[in-house]
Amino acid sequence: MTIVITGGAGFLGLRLARTLLERSTLRDGEGLERLIDRILLVDVTAPPAIADPRVSCIVGDISDRGLLNDMVDAGTTSIFHLAAIVSGMAEADFDLGIRINIDATRHLLEACRRGGRCPRVVFTSSVAVYGGDLPDIISETTPLNPQTSYGIQKAIGELLIGDYTRKGFIDGRALRLPTISVRPGRPNAAASSFVSGIIREPLNGEDAVCPVDPGTRVWLASPDTAIASLIAGHELPSAALGNCRWVNVPGISVTAAEMVASLERVAGSEVAKRVRWERDPRIERMMRGWPGAGDNSRARALGFPVDESFDAIIRRHMEDMRSASRDSAQV
Amino acid sequence: MTIVITGGAGFLGLRLARTLLERSTLRDGEGLERLIDRILLVDVTAPPAIADPRVSCIVGDISDRGLLNDMVDAGTTSIFHLAAIVSGMAEADFDLGIRINIDATRHLLEACRRGGRCPRVVFTSSVAVYGGDLPDIISETTPLNPQTSYGIQKAIGELLIGDYTRKGFIDGRALRLPTISVRPGRPNAAASSFVSGIIREPLNGEDAVCPVDPGTRVWLASPDTAIASLIAGHELPSAALGNCRWVNVPGISVTAAEMVASLERVAGSEVAKRVRWERDPRIERMMRGWPGAGDNSRARALGFPVDESFDAIIRRHMEDMRSASRDSAQV
Repeated sequence: MTIVITGGAGFLGLRLARTLLERSTLRDGEGLERLIDRILLVDVTAPPAIADPRVSCIVGDISDRGLLNDMVDAGTTSIFHLAAIVSGMAEADFDLGIRINIDATRHLLEACRRGGRCPRVVFTSSVAVYGGDLPDIISETTPLNPQTSYGIQKAIGELLIGDYTRKGFIDGRALRLPTISVRPGRPNAAASSFVSGIIREPLNGEDAVCPVDPGTRVWLASPDTAIASLIAGHELPSAALGNCRWVNVPGISVTAAEMVASLERVAGSEVAKRVRWERDPRIERMMRGWPGAGDNSRARALGFPVDESFDAIIRRHMEDMRSASRDSAQV
Repeated sequence: MTIVITGGAGFLGLRLARTLLERSTLRDGEGLERLIDRILLVDVTAPPAIADPRVSCIVGDISDRGLLNDMVDAGTTSIFHLAAIVSGMAEADFDLGIRINIDATRHLLEACRRGGRCPRVVFTSSVAVYGGDLPDIISETTPLNPQTSYGIQKAIGELLIGDYTRKGFIDGRALRLPTISVRPGRPNAAASSFVSGIIREPLNGEDAVCPVDPGTRVWLASPDTAIASLIAGHELPSAALGNCRWVNVPGISVTAAEMVASLERVAGSEVAKRVRWERDPRIERMMRGWPGAGDNSRARALGFPVDESFDAIIRRHMEDMRSASRDSAQV
């Protein structure tokens, strides 16, 4: 099978590609185990080289229809559509958010339709599709009323995924990811960037700012769980989703104060002390609009994994850091 | 104030224009009574002449951005965006539905944004935004899962209305209209066209086919109530809607059998006998996906009107027919 990953140079895209290459096979959505013949990474920046003959790259703007036509052809069996403008940036640059989060998604779906092969499309949506007056615990039956451009644009993407699936143009699945923590690397323009930053930076010996009230509740999942969920979402038989093509990927509910307490338990008080509390109204407003807890029952019944605890997430992140530094020491 | 009505040559658009001209004033959404200076009707076909110097027309394709720029300028205070591809046609011609129901709406919102005046935009949505596994009675808190392209496209329009409002580009209100009955004129390509046809045609001495099971429940409103609701939706202060920019316009719940029983009560058994029952699976499937009853409480609290009964709706339609034939006799 030939797999396209948009946003393939990003943290999740690269990690997904590496995980898929290690596995070498993937169920095709109808339960058949298939060899992975080719993975095409598409992104606006070049991904780091992956020494595997199955991997190729296209560097370019995902909203360019010519690029999309090069990217999707009659041989494309699966697409993980991860490319997106993140929440803070979509709020700051309205037109850019529309162009990438709506237009590029539409053009991608059109390219799939023209290909005529009804590829599986895993669309990464987000809990940011929720908003407004929310119940304490959200589920797939909570109505959507997103209060950010990012959430609006993701909700529109989900609707398109649903209709292109219903029309038989694609076999689509929209996965609403919780906030991912701990992301490696540097802060990004997502309003939720601090959820990784307050763990990652102190573990690197750097100070970090927590811009929200300690009681702010965040719905989150680890990178490993996110990747395993993307694969689980791909492997689901289409009939398991029926006429509801979106799934709330399982998360755990943790307050900012609990995150820092976890950090102290796992890495010590000297590390945890590097978190400074300094509220940022812009970020607080966006975070307040998003759900702090969810009901995992539908996703769990569909076979999606869930994290054990935030302590376990931090420990796993520390192992990843150690193996990354071993890898770079060996180079 | 300068009012634009898209779909201005259509049944609702024309009726809205005539009602507004009779009133001569309209509250501006913040409660101030304003003189209606100008009404611009925009449609793909020319509307019949209205002998009022305040009315002008643009004939053209609403998805043409040049036309939209001519249509909306810095003087535009209010837009009633009624132009749409109806349900049956959007299902049959996917691209046309996307072009008019999504793209034209987006371009219209962009034209408003460029105008820089934050005009009031009343967007006609539909109960077709609901679908999938529905409760017996829908409300604004029922999650959307539309199972028709029309419903998907209207839901996307609502999300855009919400975000353009939140960003301060427009003051938008999305009104989810029930099925309108009794529409005058001829059948159209809406799956719900029969809901008017089984009353209108028999009253005209013609046979009509009811393509659904007699027990099929339809959520409907009369043309008068729909027009009064469009105006009520326009006149609402923006703050009354808060961060939830859509309103389920009040309807009444009537089965197909009850409609024909009403017809018999109001117009006699000879008229009612002109309805033939002949099920059409395509129409039944679309109707089954739509709600048969709704909770009017939010809209009623906001001041929207509601019909008294289906008998009253038929009687009012018969009066309209009589006055229309008097008018044409006088010409």
